[in-house]
Amino acid sequence: MRFVLGIDGGGTSCKAALATADGAVIGRARSGAANIRTDLTGARTHIVDAARQAFLAAGQDPDLIPETPAVLGLAGANVGTYRQQLQAILPFAASRVETDAEIALEGAVGAGDGAMAIVGTGTAYMARKDGKSRAIGGWGFQIGDQGSGARIGRDLLEQTLLAHDGIRPASPLTDEMLAVFRNNPEDVVEFTTNAKPGDFGGFAPKVFEHAAKGDAVAQWIVDKAVDDVEAALGALELRPGDPLCLLGGLAGLYASRLTERYRAQLRQPLDDALGGAVSMAARLFSEQGR
Amino acid sequence: MRFVLGIDGGGTSCKAALATADGAVIGRARSGAANIRTDLTGARTHIVDAARQAFLAAGQDPDLIPETPAVLGLAGANVGTYRQQLQAILPFAASRVETDAEIALEGAVGAGDGAMAIVGTGTAYMARKDGKSRAIGGWGFQIGDQGSGARIGRDLLEQTLLAHDGIRPASPLTDEMLAVFRNNPEDVVEFTTNAKPGDFGGFAPKVFEHAAKGDAVAQWIVDKAVDDVEAALGALELRPGDPLCLLGGLAGLYASRLTERYRAQLRQPLDDALGGAVSMAARLFSEQGR
Repeated sequence: MRFVLGIDGGGTSCKAALATADGAVIGRARSGAANIRTDLTGARTHIVDAARQAFLAAGQDPDLIPETPAVLGLAGANVGTYRQQLQAILPFAASRVETDAEIALEGAVGAGDGAMAIVGTGTAYMARKDGKSRAIGGWGFQIGDQGSGARIGRDLLEQTLLAHDGIRPASPLTDEMLAVFRNNPEDVVEFTTNAKPGDFGGFAPKVFEHAAKGDAVAQWIVDKAVDDVEAALGALELRPGDPLCLLGGLAGLYASRLTERYRAQLRQPLDDALGGAVSMAARLFSEQGR
Repeated sequence: MRFVLGIDGGGTSCKAALATADGAVIGRARSGAANIRTDLTGARTHIVDAARQAFLAAGQDPDLIPETPAVLGLAGANVGTYRQQLQAILPFAASRVETDAEIALEGAVGAGDGAMAIVGTGTAYMARKDGKSRAIGGWGFQIGDQGSGARIGRDLLEQTLLAHDGIRPASPLTDEMLAVFRNNPEDVVEFTTNAKPGDFGGFAPKVFEHAAKGDAVAQWIVDKAVDDVEAALGALELRPGDPLCLLGGLAGLYASRLTERYRAQLRQPLDDALGGAVSMAARLFSEQGR
């Protein structure tokens, strides 16, 4: 075995990295979407295309694909039998299909134990303990994703309407939000009718900003969000020495707000998800080769 | 003036009652939807049709319609210029168009001061103080309707997923809910994707039932809901003697859970919304006739 492949496939694109057997990346490439839940054969096409392009980018012969093992991180790989269906039609010497979260965790904390919290428009968590991974959260903002940008934005709009009705106290932030909607609560409701998680989440940085300035409603929302994130971290049952990485658009805003216990465990991610796939491939297949 | 008309129009049907000048109902009828926001001329047609049928039901001549004043309670009457547009095309001797909430309040507490809380799939409140009415709430369950069946059901599903992930404590109720969804959290999420407020609200009675039996999660949800309803009642700034009516599908479940202060103000509704329109018509137009 001369090379290993790492693949990071998602709903918008598929990235591939070719590396030497010890995990040093020598070529990268990107192709189209790899959504195994909605288009399995299309996903295979883009995965193979990205792999070929990575060989070419490294100045290597793509005909070596059947001799090259790969680790693939793909959203939806933990659902139904998509993983098995895909593995059966891939052309690599060996294929290990993992979830996107698994390769992100490997990239963030490396091969050992540790955990990551993705805090962005949504929230999701994964921890590896004694080599076994466990994922929690990530159920979407409607009845999950506590502490996410979407939930924080939704909370703000809710508090804005409650303040308008005189049910809960107003604040500079709720006044500002109501003004955004022409001081018309019906416009707020109208906005939510078609709002996607990212539309709600767009208000989250403003909530953190006002919380830092002492806005009482913003502080209440952020305190609740931090409490929710810490409750999820608590369920991961990390040991004091385990590294913890915060990923996602709100990572920087949360980092300073966690209690000392979790702040002491925070580490910068070692690498991204694609890097995680590569190093997992080098680790798994070099071991097998020995 | 021999007669008055009361009209209660909504998105599914339009009800009319013909009464003598002192408000004694002598004929009732029902026709199709009267949604002034989506179909103004259709609403007019069904309003006039219901009025005609009410005359016939009373054994009176519908040709008296142009001599008969009417009070109409219609959803959406407080939005834009629908009220004025409708009044301009109605055939009655005089037309007073109110919101559906206004005639419901008149029906519940009569002509004097008082308040009502509608606690069903949604929540909404209205109080009349020194003859002036003020409505709050009713913004829908996405970012409003705190304490509603929809919110209680959504809270239950959220706590069920949190319990599944080990983030918050499980209870007999969350175990039961998870079993309803084949112990598969993805099925819970799938349910919420297309769930309407009434679908969430369908779980609310079960939450009250388990709260009464001491289920900790159910009690937490119900305590929060009662707190939210009381916060809204607080914003109505009722005076100690003012009558308060609970309406809607959860009225009976809330009545015993309110704090003593509000329980002391609770009254059975005097009449329904159609009765409110009739008595408002008798009151307004008899006064004008004098």
